[in-house]
Amino acid sequence: MNSIFQIGGAIAIYKGDEIFFGMSQYSLLKLIVEEGSINAAAKRKNMPYQQAWNIIDQLNRISPIPIVIRQKGGAGGGGCFVSEYGIELMKIFENKIRVFNSHIEEMNKDLSKCII
Amino acid sequence: MNSIFQIGGAIAIYKGDEIFFGMSQYSLLKLIVEEGSINAAAKRKNMPYQQAWNIIDQLNRISPIPIVIRQKGGAGGGGCFVSEYGIELMKIFENKIRVFNSHIEEMNKDLSKCII
Repeated sequence: MNSIFQIGGAIAIYKGDEIFFGMSQYSLLKLIVEEGSINAAAKRKNMPYQQAWNIIDQLNRISPIPIVIRQKGGAGGGGCFVSEYGIELMKIFENKIRVFNSHIEEMNKDLSKCII
Repeated sequence: MNSIFQIGGAIAIYKGDEIFFGMSQYSLLKLIVEEGSINAAAKRKNMPYQQAWNIIDQLNRISPIPIVIRQKGGAGGGGCFVSEYGIELMKIFENKIRVFNSHIEEMNKDLSKCII
């Protein structure tokens, strides 16, 4: 009767107790790939630049290999790009999210039978 | 090489965008079943009584059937118990968490091969 009740959730890749790579890291990287700059990516996310920069800074700090590479100079004041390793991580995360979502879908199938 | 990277996550039962029943609700109910009072359960969780009460209040508010029933009066000033529906919900959640944990374990199996 109550299909309004739904299982939801989130996964992330942790390093110890610390989140290394989750949805906020992934979605920001995706925009950096498209825009070529943290500033433009932050704007598209309606996120203060400082917050986006903190996410990237922490990501690079935890990662064994740099993920976002800043390019200095140039007419636009320098942009940045996502490293090959970063692109690989994004693909791994996409796959894990796809698997996770199908599990969630599966878990929801009998939930409406269980909850009034 | 890097088994320090691990997928982790959490699931909860949502009503719309609002969390209805997640790990904090479950673990508090479990202690209420054992202790027979919100106060004693909160103490065991090292949680202020008001915070525990808010969790229970919200749980009862969202639930189609009351989950924690308060008993007034008595020598101890009245305790509370978890309704049959609440016990059923706890069992459903335990099952979902068990399934979720096995999925997480599965997802972690090839992660160390993927991340340097």
